[in-house]
Amino acid sequence: MALDTATAAPSSPAAPDASAEPREPYFARLDRAARQNQSLLCVGLDVEPDRLPAPLRDLPLSDAIVEFNRRIVEATADLVACYKPNLAFYEALGPQGLEALRRTRALIPAHIPVIGDAKRGDIDNTMRKYAQALFDVYDFDAVTASPYLGQDAIAPFLSRTERGVYLLCRTSNPGSGEIADLDVGGRPLYLVIAERVQAWNSNHNAALVVGATYPQELARVRQVAPELPILLPGVGAQQGLLEESVQAGIDRQGGGLVVNAARQVLYASSGDDFPMAARQAALELRGRINRARGA
Amino acid sequence: MALDTATAAPSSPAAPDASAEPREPYFARLDRAARQNQSLLCVGLDVEPDRLPAPLRDLPLSDAIVEFNRRIVEATADLVACYKPNLAFYEALGPQGLEALRRTRALIPAHIPVIGDAKRGDIDNTMRKYAQALFDVYDFDAVTASPYLGQDAIAPFLSRTERGVYLLCRTSNPGSGEIADLDVGGRPLYLVIAERVQAWNSNHNAALVVGATYPQELARVRQVAPELPILLPGVGAQQGLLEESVQAGIDRQGGGLVVNAARQVLYASSGDDFPMAARQAALELRGRINRARGA
Repeated sequence: MALDTATAAPSSPAAPDASAEPREPYFARLDRAARQNQSLLCVGLDVEPDRLPAPLRDLPLSDAIVEFNRRIVEATADLVACYKPNLAFYEALGPQGLEALRRTRALIPAHIPVIGDAKRGDIDNTMRKYAQALFDVYDFDAVTASPYLGQDAIAPFLSRTERGVYLLCRTSNPGSGEIADLDVGGRPLYLVIAERVQAWNSNHNAALVVGATYPQELARVRQVAPELPILLPGVGAQQGLLEESVQAGIDRQGGGLVVNAARQVLYASSGDDFPMAARQAALELRGRINRARGA
Repeated sequence: MALDTATAAPSSPAAPDASAEPREPYFARLDRAARQNQSLLCVGLDVEPDRLPAPLRDLPLSDAIVEFNRRIVEATADLVACYKPNLAFYEALGPQGLEALRRTRALIPAHIPVIGDAKRGDIDNTMRKYAQALFDVYDFDAVTASPYLGQDAIAPFLSRTERGVYLLCRTSNPGSGEIADLDVGGRPLYLVIAERVQAWNSNHNAALVVGATYPQELARVRQVAPELPILLPGVGAQQGLLEESVQAGIDRQGGGLVVNAARQVLYASSGDDFPMAARQAALELRGRINRARGA
């Protein structure tokens, strides 16, 4: 296993011995959760303090965030394939935000995988540290990462065979084509990235991020990488085309995809009824995704 | 100013009002520190717990890290242009590591700028949160970031006109050419990135990261972007070619460059004398850089 024990000090309280805890590969666990809940929905736990429902605002901020997440998870845990906190939303609150992230991760039922959306990308020496943070401290089952630095940089993530690694391919933002569409020998860069990620996938734990805002590009990615799992952000608040994207992104088995929604679920209501409103939003999304894939 | 006040909750203790604190642009402050200390050296504060000198190992881990950094800074503050903690090394220790990062940032003298090496890259909504974390919570004067998502994604960083943003161009790792050298219409991708970053630079606060391990590529970047400041990691432990890189990377005024060294300075000695050994290593590096640029 790739956990570099030389980087974990004996005095560090934050690095459990991962090798003592063999676990099933991430994508097997994700598939099981998806089947059990008949769902390809991923709920993004991207909490914004000023959008917390009024009843929680009297709590200390980190308690309010954890409590909000707890109620969202309780209301949706039978409707999702996975959860995905984006680290930026927790880092923006300083060290107490990271403490809230750790508590949030711990309250998610063990059979539902959690993706740490961190989009890290650095040289290998540094990526070993990020792997320690994301996999050992916060125990994310999968993470997002940037492919720009190449295979040797991402190796400390991919060598953790029990974890999943979603690499940025064609992101959901309006300007994502500026770099990712650059013409590389007749093909856009994002397709070359998709091919590279396939080539890096000897541990069968690599995957791609493609925005639901670009169903045509998604279809091309699926053609080039018929078997790579895909994380599809950008439905809901970002106005991605859900049905079109699901049809473009599913693999031959009608899966191989998770669709992330955050704001649309978390903030379906700003009142006392927010857990039920979140559940209703998750139910509707799960249904739309399932109808689109014919499940 | 781009601080999105809508994202900072009244109850958040971590977001001071940046607009209340006008400050000089980062690159003006960096230039002043570089002149005052006659130095283009950046010391990377990338602390690894198992490499802490023996005398500090009896302290609680986060205290040991802060104390180590304090002694390194005291021993080198008259020899550097800036400091650069890489966030991965602190995140690997969990929330207490981020607390150590905050304390480390606070102990650096106000006239020496600090680069938060975070290499973040996400969609704009998320990048506003990262900007809040990096600029408001940790008060970094500059940061590193990934260009892959394009201009709209990086705008929440670049719109903070008083801060600097170093965008990854050609990184120092052995495989950095795998993606960055891809041929885009007859030129490598990293040169296209360098040109884009110039085009994004309407606030005069954008810059590039180019590894000292690639002096030839650096020379091409400098040709394409004669006026963009460059952060040059990879000397020392990574075996970059210091003199060759400095000559390839300096601008027409003999500056526009900072050279990062971390392990070579921090771990120059593992004994009681580590501050003096770090000072000696910093002195030698400053001298080599200055001789190479004819200063």
